[in-house]
Amino acid sequence: MDQDVKRVFNFSAGPAVLPVPALKQAQKDLLALPGVGASVMEISHRSKTFSEILEKAKANVKTLLRVPDNYRILFLQGGASLQFSMVAMNLLRGSGKPADYIITGSWGGKAAKEAKKEGTVNIAWDGKNENYVRVPDRDELKLSPDAAYVHFTSNETIQGVQFPAEPSVGDIPLVCDASSDILSRPIPVERYGIIYAGAQKNIGPSGVALVIIREDLLERSSETLPSLLNYKLMAEENSLYNTPPTFAIYMIMLVTNWLLDTFKTLERVAENNTKKASLLYKVIDESNGFYKGHAQPKWRSNMNVTWRLPSEDLEKEFVREATSVGLTELKGHRSVGGCRASIYNAMPLEGVETLCAFMKDFQQKHG
Amino acid sequence: MDQDVKRVFNFSAGPAVLPVPALKQAQKDLLALPGVGASVMEISHRSKTFSEILEKAKANVKTLLRVPDNYRILFLQGGASLQFSMVAMNLLRGSGKPADYIITGSWGGKAAKEAKKEGTVNIAWDGKNENYVRVPDRDELKLSPDAAYVHFTSNETIQGVQFPAEPSVGDIPLVCDASSDILSRPIPVERYGIIYAGAQKNIGPSGVALVIIREDLLERSSETLPSLLNYKLMAEENSLYNTPPTFAIYMIMLVTNWLLDTFKTLERVAENNTKKASLLYKVIDESNGFYKGHAQPKWRSNMNVTWRLPSEDLEKEFVREATSVGLTELKGHRSVGGCRASIYNAMPLEGVETLCAFMKDFQQKHG
Repeated sequence: MDQDVKRVFNFSAGPAVLPVPALKQAQKDLLALPGVGASVMEISHRSKTFSEILEKAKANVKTLLRVPDNYRILFLQGGASLQFSMVAMNLLRGSGKPADYIITGSWGGKAAKEAKKEGTVNIAWDGKNENYVRVPDRDELKLSPDAAYVHFTSNETIQGVQFPAEPSVGDIPLVCDASSDILSRPIPVERYGIIYAGAQKNIGPSGVALVIIREDLLERSSETLPSLLNYKLMAEENSLYNTPPTFAIYMIMLVTNWLLDTFKTLERVAENNTKKASLLYKVIDESNGFYKGHAQPKWRSNMNVTWRLPSEDLEKEFVREATSVGLTELKGHRSVGGCRASIYNAMPLEGVETLCAFMKDFQQKHG
Repeated sequence: MDQDVKRVFNFSAGPAVLPVPALKQAQKDLLALPGVGASVMEISHRSKTFSEILEKAKANVKTLLRVPDNYRILFLQGGASLQFSMVAMNLLRGSGKPADYIITGSWGGKAAKEAKKEGTVNIAWDGKNENYVRVPDRDELKLSPDAAYVHFTSNETIQGVQFPAEPSVGDIPLVCDASSDILSRPIPVERYGIIYAGAQKNIGPSGVALVIIREDLLERSSETLPSLLNYKLMAEENSLYNTPPTFAIYMIMLVTNWLLDTFKTLERVAENNTKKASLLYKVIDESNGFYKGHAQPKWRSNMNVTWRLPSEDLEKEFVREATSVGLTELKGHRSVGGCRASIYNAMPLEGVETLCAFMKDFQQKHG
């Protein structure tokens, strides 16, 4: 095995950079887990070994996010996109109530679109006309008094817009798509009904979604739902109703082990993330308009930093030159263009510093 | 890296043994794919590198199964269990027709149960009263003349009952759960409407299902379905509507590369599987009733060999002693008891020979 394997600084929005210690551990044991004699990919999901992996992954998430005891932690398939439907199938369909959606970017819009197939959706706020540059103030929200739930997207990966804190919605269950900022900072889980997140940004590889759900909400799941889409059944079966994505859950265990070993708390994870994001925003803010940040400063994301250059040609050149020096995946999402640096937990400070230096050089050369 | 890593012979029914060359390749490149500088788990599903992986995996499946051009090859999440629902949501719901289900074991029963949530199900045959020891003759099937489709399970993993060939059902689309015998033998794909299979037995790790669907059936998918559960949309998007389980698809590529390198054709894969199964059935048949096979000989499975011993205590002792000499996961499914050896494509002949020798010794000692 080549110990000096050449790795780039990978700013992909997801699937995204993973912590090297987690990858190395997975690599070491890929042919045979110690004491087992088979790869983690080859063992039964009902074996003692996999049970321990699943429970450790859950325990790590519970510790890091300080999940209260009346919440269940599930690992489900289909990514956040299937959660768009599952939330609405379990909590909206047949409820006789509307669901409120706060839309601050592309993903919130997609979540609302899927929910409309299952019941009445009230758009409580939509930043589309402002090109998704901010999150709403509390008094801008048109909430329904009797909503089945209120849905929001804590961090919009494509636009780079992040809620500084969750909206306050009283006793209505708050449902959050936290795909791109889960585990990046502490959140008061007790204020949420459901938090869900595709793993492939801050938690692990693609192919698994983390779902944290308050136990009383499980009673809303109808028996008429497909078994795989029924939160209550999946909770009763501890995510083992059928074969779960075992390798992806194993990677979540390794990634959360790394978070606990390296940072201990999400407060310290958040400090590190703020430091990294501040460096990049400083370069943007001090570029005299050469780099134009997309989101308004108060709501810009610590995870996905988005910006434009003076022309699309320069944006292409920026991405090309960056790639050539090992700074990869800086192209903005195909739906909005521009540039984007995704700097999740596993992106080292050195990667951000290297990108900052490159950006200053690029401006000097082309500005 | 320890090149002499100790591996057991793992007879798990799934997740199951994988080919060592595929695991070694994955291990070698786990920190960085050559020329990419990032793990396959860390790269965008829309990157050129992953596109090539996806297309190679599809091409390998197409070559091995000789899939005609009017079929689409999809990689979806949720395993075969979500396919139980997707088949019925896309082809049965709203069709005004019944769907016929042929039930030859536990999984067929589960498939029918999920389908009943979506529409009218006609049980064309159910082997339950005979304890699932065989598949039906053609003239035993009570087929509906106007069925939306006929569903069967080509190999019942728990009971070890396998169809020697698919049932003939005329022009009605034939839908097959082939989870535990896909790629184990050639099949005439052109006689099928849909073939689906959870990957974790013969194709790769858990967390992905292979779906092969005839193009004209895509027109039956309603726009009211959740996007992730809509075959037509998933086919239009080439399995990339949202982030697919990229690592699992990469492993499918490596496993099918290995099949092509080692066997070239499924005819030769089948020869090898028949040889392995015959060795085990010979030990059972020549044990003077010490080992009792579950399925009737004509329909017993080449993938999952199931048998009982004279007592449950002896079965426990058998599993215990086998495990102690590195023959693992031989316990039958918790729902039926007994013993089971799953001998998928990746189980080497040596593993089966070692098990046969152990079984003869065990009988001498305890018979």
